[in-house]
Amino acid sequence: MQRGTDQNQFTTTLLSRQISFIKEIDRLKYIQRRTKLFNSDRRENDAEHSWHLAMMALVLAGHADRPVDLLKVLKMVLIHDIVEIDAGDIFIYDTTKNHTNTEAELAAAERIFGLLPVEQAIDLIELWKEFEEGASNEAKFARSLDRLEPLLQNVSNNGGTWVEFDVDYRKVYEKKKVIREGSATLWEYAEKLINESVEKGILKK
Amino acid sequence: MQRGTDQNQFTTTLLSRQISFIKEIDRLKYIQRRTKLFNSDRRENDAEHSWHLAMMALVLAGHADRPVDLLKVLKMVLIHDIVEIDAGDIFIYDTTKNHTNTEAELAAAERIFGLLPVEQAIDLIELWKEFEEGASNEAKFARSLDRLEPLLQNVSNNGGTWVEFDVDYRKVYEKKKVIREGSATLWEYAEKLINESVEKGILKK
Repeated sequence: MQRGTDQNQFTTTLLSRQISFIKEIDRLKYIQRRTKLFNSDRRENDAEHSWHLAMMALVLAGHADRPVDLLKVLKMVLIHDIVEIDAGDIFIYDTTKNHTNTEAELAAAERIFGLLPVEQAIDLIELWKEFEEGASNEAKFARSLDRLEPLLQNVSNNGGTWVEFDVDYRKVYEKKKVIREGSATLWEYAEKLINESVEKGILKK
Repeated sequence: MQRGTDQNQFTTTLLSRQISFIKEIDRLKYIQRRTKLFNSDRRENDAEHSWHLAMMALVLAGHADRPVDLLKVLKMVLIHDIVEIDAGDIFIYDTTKNHTNTEAELAAAERIFGLLPVEQAIDLIELWKEFEEGASNEAKFARSLDRLEPLLQNVSNNGGTWVEFDVDYRKVYEKKKVIREGSATLWEYAEKLINESVEKGILKK
């Protein structure tokens, strides 16, 4: 009887922490990216972006160069931007901002994932770090997808943020090269899109 | 050499179908639900909702009554509303609408998942049907989450759609009972929230 009560109390505490986390991450829906939806003038938010990357992982996993654990890739892309609730989104082509703001992001990861029961918090912080480091097969593939989605969006929006923020071919190529780390096939496709964008005049050389 | 070229052509065709699908499902970001974000007046869209359910699956899977394949649950919640791109969102408490619009939804599933290479299309259509039927352990748990999220949102919004559309306790209880099929722990928590809502006067008896 006592044991049952203790077990119930334990479950209630776990669940209560998990629900706090679930409520908190709702705020990801308010974090605006610069990139706009496909064929659209409406900016994408981080929750929509994360869902789209998860769908891309599900559909494109067969193009990863090295074997990937799909469950791990899905978890990574679902959580990869949660730190932006505190740390904000930094536009990839913003040269005035430091793109290695690991301190603010690490503090965010610890605060937000830290709402969860300890073991889950540790697991998700480790997974987020693995994504950020980009060394494992799963991280490489997840990062490919994270670079491919806005490329597809910009192409569908006549240049999108490239035109809006005056970004040139060299900068785009430099950032998108990350795709090659995860998938030769996706990179070949991305390179073709970049070159066609120059030809169409929606990306300046 | 010929073989290599055929293989390349095959990969290009696969990828081209997958990219068409990835672009098409962007439209899920425009499908508005009735329920609003947590502590908010802004309605949630289906892409945000699907991301949130995926995060809930990831965090709450340990509360499923029966063992579930987490990868399968994640895939289910990620794709479960994609048919609404064509068939639209039907408000759960709308008594003027038919809630078993399987024909329109099936046609939507076939059109949208049908953009993918055939094997992937078949897999996702089967997975969507499994979710809709709600018979497997994964479908039961995924459906629990789909009912739990708007409950949490309505509680955080002083009654939310219950107040807005004059929904009473009995109707809410009837719809939320589905949670019990997937998890006794989540149902116990949900029941407590429903009863507290009546006590607080944000859900009428």
